[in-house]
This record gives sequence, C-alpha cells and structure tokens, in this order.
Amino acid sequence: MASAKIIYVAVIGVGGVGKSFLTQLEAILRQPASSTSVLSHLRLVYIARSKKALVSESYKAISQHTWPQDLARSNAAPLSQHDLVDYLSKAPGRAIVVDNTSNNDIAEAYPLFLAASISVVTPSKIAFSSDLDLWKAIFTAAANGSGPPGAGYVFHEPTVGAGLPVISTIKDLNNTGNHVTRVEGVFSGTMSFLFNSFMPMGGAESVPFSAHVKIAKDLGYTEPDARHDLSGLDVARKCTILARLCGLAIPSPTSFPVQSLIPAGLADCKSSNEFLERLADFDDDMEKVKTEALSEGKVLRYVGAVDVTRGECEVGLKRFDSEHPIAAMKGDDLQLNLYTAHYKSPIVIQGCGEGAYLAVLTDLIKVCELLL
Amino acid sequence: MASAKIIYVAVIGVGGVGKSFLTQLEAILRQPASSTSVLSHLRLVYIARSKKALVSESYKAISQHTWPQDLARSNAAPLSQHDLVDYLSKAPGRAIVVDNTSNNDIAEAYPLFLAASISVVTPSKIAFSSDLDLWKAIFTAAANGSGPPGAGYVFHEPTVGAGLPVISTIKDLNNTGNHVTRVEGVFSGTMSFLFNSFMPMGGAESVPFSAHVKIAKDLGYTEPDARHDLSGLDVARKCTILARLCGLAIPSPTSFPVQSLIPAGLADCKSSNEFLERLADFDDDMEKVKTEALSEGKVLRYVGAVDVTRGECEVGLKRFDSEHPIAAMKGDDLQLNLYTAHYKSPIVIQGCGEGAYLAVLTDLIKVCELLL
Repeated sequence: MASAKIIYVAVIGVGGVGKSFLTQLEAILRQPASSTSVLSHLRLVYIARSKKALVSESYKAISQHTWPQDLARSNAAPLSQHDLVDYLSKAPGRAIVVDNTSNNDIAEAYPLFLAASISVVTPSKIAFSSDLDLWKAIFTAAANGSGPPGAGYVFHEPTVGAGLPVISTIKDLNNTGNHVTRVEGVFSGTMSFLFNSFMPMGGAESVPFSAHVKIAKDLGYTEPDARHDLSGLDVARKCTILARLCGLAIPSPTSFPVQSLIPAGLADCKSSNEFLERLADFDDDMEKVKTEALSEGKVLRYVGAVDVTRGECEVGLKRFDSEHPIAAMKGDDLQLNLYTAHYKSPIVIQGCGEGAYLAVLTDLIKVCELLL
Repeated sequence: MASAKIIYVAVIGVGGVGKSFLTQLEAILRQPASSTSVLSHLRLVYIARSKKALVSESYKAISQHTWPQDLARSNAAPLSQHDLVDYLSKAPGRAIVVDNTSNNDIAEAYPLFLAASISVVTPSKIAFSSDLDLWKAIFTAAANGSGPPGAGYVFHEPTVGAGLPVISTIKDLNNTGNHVTRVEGVFSGTMSFLFNSFMPMGGAESVPFSAHVKIAKDLGYTEPDARHDLSGLDVARKCTILARLCGLAIPSPTSFPVQSLIPAGLADCKSSNEFLERLADFDDDMEKVKTEALSEGKVLRYVGAVDVTRGECEVGLKRFDSEHPIAAMKGDDLQLNLYTAHYKSPIVIQGCGEGAYLAVLTDLIKVCELLL
C-alpha cells in the first residue's frame, strides 16, 4: 500500500460523532506506524458544520490539528450539495464525503455524489431508513450496488449497530449464499438499559418504569427528549435498514407494526418534562406487563425483528426465557441474533453502542482499500 | 462491478471444506442474479487433491459442474508449489490460490505466491499458527501486510472462528486505533460441546466426563482420534493466531501454558480406542474439578485467552459465574469476547463453528473486490 495516491476527503458535521471521528483519525495518523495505514493517503480538503465551512481552494490539506480554531474563524458558508459535488469532482484524485449529520437534504444528495465517483461514508440512518426510493437510488448509483465501475462506494456500518460489525456481516452472509432468514435483537442502547434495569435476569428490587426512564435520562442514555427513544422509531429505522439489506422492499419505518412506549394518554404532553412527570401515572400498566412475563419465568425486552422469509418486520416488547442470549444482556449493550439458511444456531453479535465514530473510520479504511 | 476482468483461481484440496466451498460457489453462480456478484469474474483453472490434478493448459475454465468426474479421470499429478507459481504467474490476469489442505509444504509456499502477485485464501491454521518466521514472511510479502502494491493479498478468516467474523473484526478494531486489549473465548466446538454438556448452566444429570467424550465422538464432534481435541493444541493454535493479529510475537503454539485434558497416566495409550476406554479411570479427577467449581456457583469452560497488554496467552479450564456470556453457551457454539481500549463492554461474537467453507467464500469475495 505504498502508492503515493491521494484521496480527498470532505467531512460534513463536526458534532459528537464527527468530532470524535476527526480526533481519532488524527490520533491514528500521529502514530509512528501510520505510514503503513491506508488512511495516510487521505487529504482533508473540506470541513463543514451547519453555518460555516473550511474549503481548501487548491485542494491543499486542511490541518488535522488546528481545524477547530480554523473553522471557528472561517467566514465561508457550507457549500450546497451541488457545489460540493462540483468541488470534489474537480479534485485531482478520488474523493470521499463523510456525512456525520442527520440532514435530510444531504442524505438525498448521496446518489449525486456516487454518480460523480464520490464515495459516501456515514453513521446517519436517514438515507437508508426513509423512503425506499432513496435507498434504491443510492444502491443503483453505487459501485458496491448495481452502479457502474468507477462510481462511488457507499458504506454505513454504524447505522444499525454503531461500532459492532453488523452490516458487513449481513452482507458477507448474503453474498456467500448463506442467506439471513431472520434477525432479532436489541438495537437501541436506551431500550436495552431501560429493560435490563427494569427486569434484570435473576430479578431485582422493584423500581417503577418511569423512575428507570428518569435515571436513563440523567445518565445521558436517552435523547434530550426521552419520547424520541420511547416511540420506537429509532429501532424501527434500524429494522428497516436490516430488512432492506436482506432484500425486503420495506417502504418506510412506519410501514410495519411498532409498539410505542409513549402511553396514548400522554400524546398531548407539551414538553419533555411534563411527559416525564406524568409517565408515573402509567407505571401500573407496565408493572402488569412485567408481572405477566414473570409468571412465565420470562423477562421483557424491547426488540426489533425481521422475518426475511415471511417479509415482515416488527418492533416492540417481547418475553424471553432465561436461556435466550437476549435475556442475559446487561447495561446498555446492543445484541443482534442472525439466523441463516446454513447455520444451525444464530450468529450473535453483542457489545456497547458507543463506537459509531470508530465504525466510520472502519468504513473509510474499506473505501480507501478499494480506491487505492 | 461490470468490468470484464477475469481472475484465475486454483483450488488445492477438495476434501470436506474444499468440496463444500466448490459446491457453494457453483450454487451462487447458478443464481439468476449471479452476474452482479464479483464471483462471476472468477475462472477456475486448477483443482488438485493429494495425488491428482486438473490443470487447464490454456487457462480456459474448468467446469464447475463436472470437475469431480473430470478430476477422478485425470492422470495429471498436482503441480509442485514452484510450478504452480509459474503456471499462475503466466495467466493473462491476476490469480488466487485457495488452499483447503492442512499441508505444511503448501503453507510454507504462501510467501512465494504472494510475492508473485498471487493471492492466498485459506481455512488452514498451519501457516499462521506455526513458526513465527513463516507468519512474518507471509505478511512481509502480502499487499495487505507490508508488501508492495501489486503483491498478492492473504485472507484466512476461518482459521479462528470458522464462519464467524472474527479476524476481520479484530483487524478493523486495531486499524481504527481501538486496540484489542484482551481476547477470551471458547474457540473449539468440541470443547464447547463437552463442557456445555458436562456442566450446563442450571445443572443437569451427572454423567461422567469420559461418557461425554464418547458421545461427542459418536456425534462426530471430535476428530477421529479425540486426543487431538483434548490436547488443547487446536485451541492453542487459534490463540497464537489471535495474539499475532494483536501484535504479539508469539513464537509457536507450544510456547505458552496449555492445559491438556489427556491425563498424564494415559500418555502411553497406543490407540484412540484404548484411550477412550481408559479415560473413565480418570473421571473422578474431573468430577472433583467440577464439584469445586459448583461450590463457588460457577461452571467450567475450556477457554483460550490472550492478554495483549501483558503479552501473554493461556489455554485451559476456567471457572465462570452464571452472569458471564461464556457460561450461558449451548451446543457446540464458539464464542469470542473482544475487550478493547475504547469500549466499556466486550464485543461478543458467538455462533456455530461449521461455516469454514462459507468464510473461504467471504474472503474470496474480498480479494476479488480488491483486484477488480
């Protein structure tokens, strides 16, 4: 990999994941052995946040060290998607866009990037879990879809399992003809924490469900508005991606049954705080569901499931007996169970859900290997 | 991927894994959608078993359908490693050797293949778990090691976890600077079956250890001579590979502590059958170890462990409490726990150990993607 080729990189979004990604990239390139990494071929030429951007006029490298200050001082506005395609198309080599935003307009531009030979790496679920037409447009354009050789590559490993090797494993299984027949798992760290605490295997002191939600919020395990987790939409989006990877034409994340944990009686709450206060009024309902599971010797877990054979997705609470790996989960771990045509037992992949920025790097390395 | 490039493939070894691999490759290429698979670029030009070979004189395709009969009828002997390098070097395109043997001479030729731009894909542990010099020679020669661009690629995913994504995950973690600090797991399906049966979580009817070994042998879970499993060498080889992947310079699989389950008093057994008969004399010893674990509320598992930080490997029996994922294993599943610098909980990868032939295909696809 000693080729002198340069790959030009544009990074959009420098919030949580974006910033951690750039920090880790810099840390790798600072190592003495970094020259052997394919990442040493990267040249950062564009960094944007919502209102500002750093654009390297002559495709010279933006400093990996001083970019935060340089970006803060910049007066340039971010390029439009069309202008960014134009800018990167004129770079004297192949280019990659790393999209760390959840911006719908940028997601919709992925097919443009790909058709212009620009690869896309992203932790954002938006493009892959929204309208099916966008999914089709992306994979029709991409070289690692049905696009022409020379088109851009698209990788989105973090969109289901953060730092866990989920999407790559499913692709490998399907590509070798060992088709995934069913996926089931806990795809949300928040839901994992809530139910592993509310109903740990082996039992625990009884604490009402609403109290666990408050604890999860205080520990930073929920979104600022916990309803975004409790609605199940995040899990539904991950299910949509998993199902589409397995060949199902799922129209959208709201096109199949999703059990919301927001009580119907709280649909009118004006604020996140009002919701959290009034959630306690519904603790008895959740306690009843828990008692029912307990009477069967089972635990409750909030899971997503894709039945590839039947072409169905489902998201919601399910009971698991103590023998099942999903029952034994702890903390806020994620877990996927992949059932396949050739294996007698499922492949289980489990771990924490915090490594999205590292999976972005993994994908970036894969694109570099393909481009070099 | 619509390029018309052809990649020439030589397959050595058509026993269990080799035959399943060729059958599955043919099944994939028979699918209507096969033209979109990178595997459609492959052309089979050489198939060898120990005494016979099919060699395509003019690099035309060997039939994927009739090769078993064609090979049976062939009078040609297998090419020597040097002649095979010569033959594939003259092919009008890049070439890949798929080595499905456990042949030491072929393993020692990997650096030759790689230096001649021929890629190597293999499920064999031999090359990667023997002398450290061979490991170094392989990765010094390979393009995905420190070899020059244009050298061959080497992939050996099945050598630790059969069909599970073990080696690719460890490489990805280390490449992104999220270094693996510790690996622990059950790497042998045989040992998994023996101890999950001998001491399942939750307890079971007491059956002596030697009886479980006989059952495992009858079910085909052991090698024809069960001592090959019980010696622990297979697990030690897998530990050696894992440790080297994490950067440790482990000299050989016998250079660290490995607990053999072959009682010292049975070292002189002449045959596998004599060993199995006399193993019952030592059941009390194993029962004692079991009782000790039970008194602590733990179960026994035969595990391999690599402590990357301390630079140490170890293989043998260990006690696990019921909360640990290793305790909850069933059947003959494998399980790896990967502890890393950045994640608060280990990545757990679990599943059956039967998919080596599918992992060979996964690796072959990866090489094709890199060569096309």
